[in-house]
Amino acid sequence: MFIVSPDIERYIQNLTESMSFDNDILLQMEDYAKQINFPIVGRQVGVLLYIFTKLKKPKLVVEMGSGYGYSAYWFAKALDDGKVVLIDFQQKNIDMAKQYFEKAGLLDKAEFRVGDALEIAKEYKNIDILFLDLEKIKYFEAIKVMEENLSKDGLVIADNVLWYGNVVLEETDRKTKAIKDFNEYMFRSGKFVSQIVPLRDGVLIGLRI
Amino acid sequence: MFIVSPDIERYIQNLTESMSFDNDILLQMEDYAKQINFPIVGRQVGVLLYIFTKLKKPKLVVEMGSGYGYSAYWFAKALDDGKVVLIDFQQKNIDMAKQYFEKAGLLDKAEFRVGDALEIAKEYKNIDILFLDLEKIKYFEAIKVMEENLSKDGLVIADNVLWYGNVVLEETDRKTKAIKDFNEYMFRSGKFVSQIVPLRDGVLIGLRI
Repeated sequence: MFIVSPDIERYIQNLTESMSFDNDILLQMEDYAKQINFPIVGRQVGVLLYIFTKLKKPKLVVEMGSGYGYSAYWFAKALDDGKVVLIDFQQKNIDMAKQYFEKAGLLDKAEFRVGDALEIAKEYKNIDILFLDLEKIKYFEAIKVMEENLSKDGLVIADNVLWYGNVVLEETDRKTKAIKDFNEYMFRSGKFVSQIVPLRDGVLIGLRI
Repeated sequence: MFIVSPDIERYIQNLTESMSFDNDILLQMEDYAKQINFPIVGRQVGVLLYIFTKLKKPKLVVEMGSGYGYSAYWFAKALDDGKVVLIDFQQKNIDMAKQYFEKAGLLDKAEFRVGDALEIAKEYKNIDILFLDLEKIKYFEAIKVMEENLSKDGLVIADNVLWYGNVVLEETDRKTKAIKDFNEYMFRSGKFVSQIVPLRDGVLIGLRI
């Protein structure tokens, strides 16, 4: 199953790759993802995060599920001031993220935390952008726990909300169920104006109202 | 040819329609589009325009190609202050837009212009959001003429940039060529950070840098 027609996806990917950014660190991070088959958001979604950050001008971005810092790199690059909090349950991932951020000269824009994303994220209030990329089974729980910690017109950005197309299957496992519950909440609770951007595995954008 | 897998598109459409907005005028405008087969951006893209407008907080939105005001409705609903300029070459479309805006209580947020979109749009400077939905053959010309009229970090939003998938065909007609030239310029000129959101017929988002 695919989300976007492969020819169209290639067209968008080629255009995205032809845009000039400080490519060295990005390419290193992308190569590493290929080597170990790590599920980073990829260049297409990275650029999207960059654009949303430039528009939102956040003081505080909190990531739930940072891996080794690929998405956080895009947030940090787009920040005027303020910081991005990286959270991952693996020390190894956070250590790598620190190294990449040091090479990129972005350490002053980041805070690094190791542990349970739900427990740690709760410590932060007035979050301008909350980025969800933690274990899929925790998506619905995550928004319920965190929504009161968003700033007045805070933005939620969640990756993998189409879950490789599984959200449209009749029979769903617990992970898919949690993602579907999350999506429905973001559209139907009356607390957010949301849309899904069908790039890569689907990115939900939800503005707190 | 399709852009997003039909099952996924339906999933996103159902979620989008389940979100509560002031639905009366929207439904009237959407019904009218169906009756006369008018190419409005539709609910999915409408919500996207709303979110981008809430994030950008523009003083001035200029639409090149407004039809009878469906996209402008979404911009106007999301404006805190400021206005949206509707431009269409058909008096009849602009008259209808005025009627819908009056019913929706949005007249004070809009300016209505009839004539050539390129000629009229040029009159406006410091445009915070420029929305392109004019004749496709004019897309590349439109951005070249208008880019200097954008505000410092102005946002370009262009509809139909995947042109029903025609952008990936080897043989292209003049309209498709103009759209492809536009897309390449938005990604490669170094003047914008851009991404394509593959909802409906493709929406390009380009942030002036």
